[in-house]
Amino acid sequence: MRWCLRIEYDGYGYVGWQRQKNGSSIQQSIEDAIHKFCGERVSVFGAGRTDAGVHALRQAAHFDLNRDTKAEIVRDALNAHLRSQSISIISAHVVSCKFNARFSATERSYVYKILNRRPPPALDAGRVWHLQKWLDVDSMNKAAQVLVGEHDFTTFRAAMCQAKSPVRTLTALSVARVEDLVTVSARAPSFLHHQIRNFVGTLRLVGEGKWTEIDVKNALLSRDRSKGGETAPPRGLFLVDVVYPTEVSGVA
Amino acid sequence: MRWCLRIEYDGYGYVGWQRQKNGSSIQQSIEDAIHKFCGERVSVFGAGRTDAGVHALRQAAHFDLNRDTKAEIVRDALNAHLRSQSISIISAHVVSCKFNARFSATERSYVYKILNRRPPPALDAGRVWHLQKWLDVDSMNKAAQVLVGEHDFTTFRAAMCQAKSPVRTLTALSVARVEDLVTVSARAPSFLHHQIRNFVGTLRLVGEGKWTEIDVKNALLSRDRSKGGETAPPRGLFLVDVVYPTEVSGVA
Repeated sequence: MRWCLRIEYDGYGYVGWQRQKNGSSIQQSIEDAIHKFCGERVSVFGAGRTDAGVHALRQAAHFDLNRDTKAEIVRDALNAHLRSQSISIISAHVVSCKFNARFSATERSYVYKILNRRPPPALDAGRVWHLQKWLDVDSMNKAAQVLVGEHDFTTFRAAMCQAKSPVRTLTALSVARVEDLVTVSARAPSFLHHQIRNFVGTLRLVGEGKWTEIDVKNALLSRDRSKGGETAPPRGLFLVDVVYPTEVSGVA
Repeated sequence: MRWCLRIEYDGYGYVGWQRQKNGSSIQQSIEDAIHKFCGERVSVFGAGRTDAGVHALRQAAHFDLNRDTKAEIVRDALNAHLRSQSISIISAHVVSCKFNARFSATERSYVYKILNRRPPPALDAGRVWHLQKWLDVDSMNKAAQVLVGEHDFTTFRAAMCQAKSPVRTLTALSVARVEDLVTVSARAPSFLHHQIRNFVGTLRLVGEGKWTEIDVKNALLSRDRSKGGETAPPRGLFLVDVVYPTEVSGVA
């Protein structure tokens, strides 16, 4: 039976989603919890391989289990074994054997949070990028529209990105402010490695008045990572949701 | 010169606002930061003596300083000395010498957050009360109205409460839900010790269908702490704001 999990986590202190030798990963933690629960050693495949320090509200992942058991039991047992960690299994569902958390996804959505004020964060420490200089959110949002659509996003792609093509279709990118909190929201069928964090580092230049919309357009057209803004830190990034066609995912 | 600070903090790991022998307090941390900044040993008086684990978005506090300095310098220097702590000075202002953070306040507002779902919190761990049983928020909100107004709140007052009178005037108390998050919002000129946490523990009984509005009314009228619900844990409580008359506080 193939299972799909929805997972919330605080990425602080983890090396990221993916299993690595140098520290604790979300993937490994869940695989260990499954092993403790039912004795089976499985591989858990995530929809998005979030970097170290990146958070998730509803990450999706699949794995195969021999044992026949109830969804609520899987969810509650995994949560019991994950009690000491900042990982929570929001739901567990049996899905079609054709379901693949990574390849079946039709849309991924992310939010990047910036705390835009002089004093440092206390309550949101580790979950925002703290930028002290006032950001012109209207200009950022206008410049963001330059990036929407199908483009070669080489400028916003990490050097270590493993995707075959740098072409992606960005469905939506918007920037909004509520008091001191500036949020950058992004939706696309898929993203390149560091794409959103590189967008945010670039839009910051617009918000601070150093760049215009035209500069963002020229950076995009240059297809040169060195022409884009810096990579924003991981701590402000949240994987919000992953969408699947109901024919493969059922209720997931 | 008398100064008023506005302070955000994550109460986790602190013994509370007030200086104590058995651990680190918010008050002591700020007094130490002031000493490091200017060499003066002062006492900092807070508007609300929040308990261990209780958070604040805009706690207010006053202290007197001999040194003449700019507001931005006070704020930034204190934040530099508080860098290793989950305390942030949002603002610093010179106020009238008649200003007293505790006694000049005309209104205090708090929010209590409940995560109402089966899976445990990951991102909000330490900042919500996790209640798994579904809460009927409409009934809770209706029952909350029984408590609004001037009453003898002995039923909702901690045994160690030092207030001379158990009579308080509750300006507003409301309960609302956004998805899994239930928030209880309270406003009053002042509160008794544990008053909001005791309200929340009591309203929980209504939300779970164990109590009705009439039971809340009877509990209030009994003037007996043992007739009220349990004390909700501190981690869900946030001091949101403290209001002062502009004639004593200026812009604070």
